[in-house]
Amino acid sequence: MGMVYGIDIGGTNIKLGIVDKDGVIQKEGQIRTRAEEGPSAVISRVLEWFNSNRGGRSDSDIIGAGIGCAGLLDRERGFLYSSPNLPRWDNLELGKLFSERIGVPVVVDNDVNCAAYGEFLFGAGRGANNFICITLGTGVGGGIVINGRLYRGETGQAGEIGHMIIKFDGRLCRCQNRGCLEAYIGSAAIVERTKEMLKQESSNPLLDIERLTVKDITEAAREGNKLAVKSLEKTGIYFGIGLSNIVHIINPEVIAVGGGVSAAGDLILKPAGETLAGHVMDEKFLDVKIVPAELGNKASFLGAAMMVFNKKQDE
Amino acid sequence: MGMVYGIDIGGTNIKLGIVDKDGVIQKEGQIRTRAEEGPSAVISRVLEWFNSNRGGRSDSDIIGAGIGCAGLLDRERGFLYSSPNLPRWDNLELGKLFSERIGVPVVVDNDVNCAAYGEFLFGAGRGANNFICITLGTGVGGGIVINGRLYRGETGQAGEIGHMIIKFDGRLCRCQNRGCLEAYIGSAAIVERTKEMLKQESSNPLLDIERLTVKDITEAAREGNKLAVKSLEKTGIYFGIGLSNIVHIINPEVIAVGGGVSAAGDLILKPAGETLAGHVMDEKFLDVKIVPAELGNKASFLGAAMMVFNKKQDE
Repeated sequence: MGMVYGIDIGGTNIKLGIVDKDGVIQKEGQIRTRAEEGPSAVISRVLEWFNSNRGGRSDSDIIGAGIGCAGLLDRERGFLYSSPNLPRWDNLELGKLFSERIGVPVVVDNDVNCAAYGEFLFGAGRGANNFICITLGTGVGGGIVINGRLYRGETGQAGEIGHMIIKFDGRLCRCQNRGCLEAYIGSAAIVERTKEMLKQESSNPLLDIERLTVKDITEAAREGNKLAVKSLEKTGIYFGIGLSNIVHIINPEVIAVGGGVSAAGDLILKPAGETLAGHVMDEKFLDVKIVPAELGNKASFLGAAMMVFNKKQDE
Repeated sequence: MGMVYGIDIGGTNIKLGIVDKDGVIQKEGQIRTRAEEGPSAVISRVLEWFNSNRGGRSDSDIIGAGIGCAGLLDRERGFLYSSPNLPRWDNLELGKLFSERIGVPVVVDNDVNCAAYGEFLFGAGRGANNFICITLGTGVGGGIVINGRLYRGETGQAGEIGHMIIKFDGRLCRCQNRGCLEAYIGSAAIVERTKEMLKQESSNPLLDIERLTVKDITEAAREGNKLAVKSLEKTGIYFGIGLSNIVHIINPEVIAVGGGVSAAGDLILKPAGETLAGHVMDEKFLDVKIVPAELGNKASFLGAAMMVFNKKQDE
């Protein structure tokens, strides 16, 4: 049976999998990205991993590769304009570079779209006709499924929900605009907010203001630290505003929430759900199910691989 | 050739048309709504109009009717939960009432969806695969076409862009939330803002604070009245924030802008376009064309009628 390589290129790690047409992951693993070595060296290490891990499969068993990558892409051409995670990989024929080395067709798409497609086929969005997969992390992104098909928008940029403005004169975002959702719920914003709150306190036994991550805040909250709980609750309230906007515009059946920050679970999702409920103009909008993503960091390479198998129906 | 009745029920007027399968309007007109007379009397007057205006066509020439109506609807059942325009028409079997009287199948949908469908087929959205039709008036609404099909959302409520929050602690909206787009660019908001500005001035020769409408403000602006120009410019800036959110989420090809307030044309659309351009996170989002709607108040009855002809492919 033909297999496809699934590749999710992140800023720190590359997640890899060998996937069959039913979405079964035959083998999976992870290597360091080390983008600074340049695309050619990175591709060599990716291929090395596949060659060492494909077992008895011959070249002819591999019928394609799917690549998920954060950044601004021309999917048709497999062209990467720029990626926040991969400095100096600008204006790169990413698809072509891979396909020349692997000798099979390569599909490239935004990592968030790939994750949404994976969750739609095999995870939290299974069976939902209208589905949104949100990733919460350094960036806040969304992948959209409409009428059972991944919707990418006219130029492939749909779903940039992190840059939806929820307060037009609000906090400065790294995109240089003010009031973007990401400026309130991206991991940097959560850390910054918590630091501001810590400065109001004399001392906090669980949180070190000098070395603070969302993971630290989440752990402290789970141990009952009130400040940490409060900070994540505020994050959830802002997220709920964003959800309210999404729900009023798209009226989806299911919204799945993944990404590193989502590990906070109900510490964020509960206040988010309450805020959403308090902001819908009609309760029919609350028919939406808001659920955790199910596939973790497999979602993106799996979705990318499935785009190769489903290329025809996906177009 | 079979004809369809197109009916657009507004709070003040009902727009009516007899439409053929190519979307050619054979006859059109308008009657007063007078919702207070109750559905039965209103339906009688609608049918009277059609009977007087259908020329030599017999009953068997009429194969269906499409109704556009503001409000919360169950499209499948043709059921009207409530309409802001039709007080006391709550929980009404609108489709059934009509079909029993006309004796042909009746389709009911939200008036904004109907207008979007009309503009998509024959107006400003012709040929666009991903298209949004925005109506600016008392309410601010949107109809969405995705992959060449009207997208209604999971429970039929998609496109409620007027209740997208652009400032979470902002102006109070008539939906009781704070910071909705409609609270900044709905006609009541424009009038209120202009009144606030007028209070800062000793007197204004063109604007009567006691009797002020968006039409007055638009006319004064066209005559060069600086305050009126400024007020519409502010409206345009807020609208641009809303457009920026829509564009980041949906990334459409064309956005058409209609509704009474849109008569202000470039007085609103120019600052809106500039604001949008200043807020996109990448210039690819600016591939969107923002254009005036083309069909005026024909859009909704025409779109409603075409839903009858295209029922199969529209589902």
